[in-house]
Amino acid sequence: MQIGLIGLGKMGGNMAERLRRGGHDVVGYDRDRQISDVGSLKELVERLAAPRVVWIMVPAGDPTRATISALSELLAPGDTVVDGGNSHYGDDQRHGEELAAREIGFVDVGVSGGVWGLQNGYALMAGGTAENVQRLMPIFDTLKPEGEDGFVHAGSVGAGHFAKMVHNGIEYGMMQAFAEGWELLEATDIVTDVPGAFASWRHGTVIRSWLLDLLVRALKEDPELSELKGYAQDSGEGRWTVQAAVDHAVPLPVITAALFARFASRQEDSPAMKMVAALRNQFGGHAVSA
Amino acid sequence: MQIGLIGLGKMGGNMAERLRRGGHDVVGYDRDRQISDVGSLKELVERLAAPRVVWIMVPAGDPTRATISALSELLAPGDTVVDGGNSHYGDDQRHGEELAAREIGFVDVGVSGGVWGLQNGYALMAGGTAENVQRLMPIFDTLKPEGEDGFVHAGSVGAGHFAKMVHNGIEYGMMQAFAEGWELLEATDIVTDVPGAFASWRHGTVIRSWLLDLLVRALKEDPELSELKGYAQDSGEGRWTVQAAVDHAVPLPVITAALFARFASRQEDSPAMKMVAALRNQFGGHAVSA
Amino acid sequence: MQIGLIGLGKMGGNMAERLRRGGHDVVGYDRDRQISDVGSLKELVERLAAPRVVWIMVPAGDPTRATISALSELLAPGDTVVDGGNSHYGDDQRHGEELAAREIGFVDVGVSGGVWGLQNGYALMAGGTAENVQRLMPIFDTLKPEGEDGFVHAGSVGAGHFAKMVHNGIEYGMMQAFAEGWELLEATDIVTDVPGAFASWRHGTVIRSWLLDLLVRALKEDPELSELKGYAQDSGEGRWTVQAAVDHAVPLPVITAALFARFASRQEDSPAMKMVAALRNQFGGHAVSA
Amino acid sequence: MQIGLIGLGKMGGNMAERLRRGGHDVVGYDRDRQISDVGSLKELVERLAAPRVVWIMVPAGDPTRATISALSELLAPGDTVVDGGNSHYGDDQRHGEELAAREIGFVDVGVSGGVWGLQNGYALMAGGTAENVQRLMPIFDTLKPEGEDGFVHAGSVGAGHFAKMVHNGIEYGMMQAFAEGWELLEATDIVTDVPGAFASWRHGTVIRSWLLDLLVRALKEDPELSELKGYAQDSGEGRWTVQAAVDHAVPLPVITAALFARFASRQEDSPAMKMVAALRNQFGGHAVSA
Repeated sequence: MQIGLIGLGKMGGNMAERLRRGGHDVVGYDRDRQISDVGSLKELVERLAAPRVVWIMVPAGDPTRATISALSELLAPGDTVVDGGNSHYGDDQRHGEELAAREIGFVDVGVSGGVWGLQNGYALMAGGTAENVQRLMPIFDTLKPEGEDGFVHAGSVGAGHFAKMVHNGIEYGMMQAFAEGWELLEATDIVTDVPGAFASWRHGTVIRSWLLDLLVRALKEDPELSELKGYAQDSGEGRWTVQAAVDHAVPLPVITAALFARFASRQEDSPAMKMVAALRNQFGGHAVSA
Repeated sequence: MQIGLIGLGKMGGNMAERLRRGGHDVVGYDRDRQISDVGSLKELVERLAAPRVVWIMVPAGDPTRATISALSELLAPGDTVVDGGNSHYGDDQRHGEELAAREIGFVDVGVSGGVWGLQNGYALMAGGTAENVQRLMPIFDTLKPEGEDGFVHAGSVGAGHFAKMVHNGIEYGMMQAFAEGWELLEATDIVTDVPGAFASWRHGTVIRSWLLDLLVRALKEDPELSELKGYAQDSGEGRWTVQAAVDHAVPLPVITAALFARFASRQEDSPAMKMVAALRNQFGGHAVSA
Repeated sequence: MQIGLIGLGKMGGNMAERLRRGGHDVVGYDRDRQISDVGSLKELVERLAAPRVVWIMVPAGDPTRATISALSELLAPGDTVVDGGNSHYGDDQRHGEELAAREIGFVDVGVSGGVWGLQNGYALMAGGTAENVQRLMPIFDTLKPEGEDGFVHAGSVGAGHFAKMVHNGIEYGMMQAFAEGWELLEATDIVTDVPGAFASWRHGTVIRSWLLDLLVRALKEDPELSELKGYAQDSGEGRWTVQAAVDHAVPLPVITAALFARFASRQEDSPAMKMVAALRNQFGGHAVSA
Repeated sequence: MQIGLIGLGKMGGNMAERLRRGGHDVVGYDRDRQISDVGSLKELVERLAAPRVVWIMVPAGDPTRATISALSELLAPGDTVVDGGNSHYGDDQRHGEELAAREIGFVDVGVSGGVWGLQNGYALMAGGTAENVQRLMPIFDTLKPEGEDGFVHAGSVGAGHFAKMVHNGIEYGMMQAFAEGWELLEATDIVTDVPGAFASWRHGTVIRSWLLDLLVRALKEDPELSELKGYAQDSGEGRWTVQAAVDHAVPLPVITAALFARFASRQEDSPAMKMVAALRNQFGGHAVSA
């Protein structure tokens, strides 16, 4: 089917390619004229036959909000907007209402797959009405991995990004679990073949997983990760997961600990530990490092 | 090759079976006469041709200690003892020395695979001298999963169980990450198809893993886990992982949080929270639940 | 000076009393006609001489928002509104702007002291312009404890409640630290005089504090807290502290752990631990409690 | 009464001074001849009239073990040894048995007070038989702060150090709670008078405490702690507290988080976060800092 795709970066560009390989007619728009099929959003909308489907893959927050706002002016009743970026589920609910006021449909889709998605397919979590989701199924079927899983209609508007958000929260916890295990093995000298130990876990164990495969690959490239700094960004979904949990009084110790470890990794020095050092100095005359 | 196997329970019995299917001559001993091939440890040793290999699969702690002690009396120089149970790495080091004093070899092996190991193979992490490990390779090759991974000679005596211990620590963290994500999805009513969301993650996502497969299976059997109580045992390795981390000044927030969640799950009521309630009552006249 | 005080509950009633003892002319309003000096907000405003000061002590959220909204209609340019409740600092900023649009001043005040404040005074953290705060100093001087501390002009509008919020976050962490220590002493049988141990710490130690005094008093009344359930509410500020930290990428492991412990204390059964039990059952055939 | 005191460092020296001011006859021994009253342990023992009391204030672990071992040779039945250092309660139990075999009494005493103890007194937690503890009461009465609290006979041998260990665990949690609150105030620019906010809490609040007094003092000396590095040692008791909790299946999230924060503060770079960065790079092509 025909689809407009806004944002042809690392994710959007690969998705356009997978859709084209699957026989869809993709009209892509990007601010970078070199890779854009059209010169403007207006031109994109004009190139699509009604009822139109426009899929947005731009950064969450202001860029997505601005794009939806512009589309609400350009599109017509009966068209459908899809937000496949990493928006907050609260934004989805606002966007859905804004578009519904003009009789434009809205579906939010959490997309997982990263740089491997072009080849393996993207796991998709969709939020919206049954009718709107149904309409998009040919697109979803092409984007998702082969087999019976890889797609869920998670609930109404917002549910797709909420599900993706929780997926990422789980991801934070799993990555930190592996990372802590690696640190403990490295910090002791009991296991002398640490990369080999991780590799031995790839089959037959409870923790076998794609993350473990990636970890083994990373250690093959750099057995002590000596080329890396212990510095990790967080992408938003981890924070939103914790904030949603706090809103709903759900204890989330592991996911939160993983998020905080990332925060701490970006500090030159820990302000809190300065205060601990100051207090130790006050009551015990303990030496402090200045 | 010929091997004596002590302990024919859930794990040991399946391992004996897998070894026999692989063409090995297994003489099994168990306190349960109905399933034992021999009537005593002494008879087991007599049935094996020197130099003997005896693999122990009995509970960690006193049962393993007593078995090794008995074997040190019965075996001869040149024989080899393997501890495939879940012993602490500190015990291994003591057992290795005790047996070395009688010129009996010792190898500790962390074994992963649970009830699925008979069919899929067991991931194996071995600790001991190169010579002792080499001697056991025909056994390891049969027990481990097919393919290049699934076995590591992790280091000297103790390294096998240390590696397995860390594996289990990682497992605790991963399980808790999935469990927290599930609780958050259940506690909110945004995602209406929770089992479907988890199933959608089985392919193409960062968190795809065997644990996720099991989780999807569990939700298929009981979509809200209404048949279960939120009560989880811990098997020892999680505690040892945390204690090893504390010994070596390694921060392990996620794995420890997962362990503490299990501890808390077994309390009828939280003593600490009684004290929090008592303090709130003291300073604020806050109502308390009695 | 003259002051209108809205909300004569546990906190507001005691504050009115302390102000009157300090020589101020307090006109109190409460929905409960039995304790109210006036019949309506309108009457309250009419009873006060311009420029008026009206101090609000009603629950945070909708009750405070509605009261400020009503006052913005009733008061006149040059009047000042004080929110001494437990509002979120984001609400303060909105309220400040709403009132400023009508030339009404606004000061937010974090108030600490609980049921002991009438006698000992209330610690006060104020947010607003220097001019507005200055005007209220006679009130603050009467409410605060004797001595040089007990009051801070923390910053502009919102800073008072932000400071109080962080105070409460710290309080959560401290209470949980004491509670965990008590649980550990109770869970082991090494220290046989647990209340005595806590009492011994009241003087000469690093942890001497008012909370410790309250804890000793609580154990005197009920040495094993057998009359209490391990169930603790949270009042909002703890959640906001964690959410502010997440917004600003500040790791807050201790305060968050204390908040999560309260969440968990209110669950009949832990959903997350049901999932852990389900996973253990799937991979290991571990017995589960149903 | 007469007492031998071994170890005249920062703690021991001040305690000797407080005891002398209290009228006791203190014979001090230290490896540093300049401050020692006697030339050897042997001479110390000879200088004391039987039945002797010898109080040890040397570092925990090997120094204490060696001292007790030496004393067990030099002392006579009926004498009493006191360990006032920071020994593990497990060591106490061994030392008690070792000395009991020679009919020498043993009491372990947890001592709190740091550099302020000389002036304010030391909080004391004693473990041992009623008879042995009774005998030492004149010493305890002089060392402890004035008033009814400040001393507890916590239980049998080991209970004194166990109580002190838990005290220190609580201390870790409290310090970290204050430190996190300070970091959050510093990381946001809402509260502009951060030292003033802390000072305002010294009276009338739930968190008023000696630690808060010290914190206010530290900020008076260096309002942004710019002279300090975020680096904090741990003294052993924090680790033992967590390990005792793990041994007894007691969840201790706050105290453990505080301990882990200290561990992390001493790392140049976080190994775990290197692994998180490596994994992010593997699956997402996320930029890494090298």
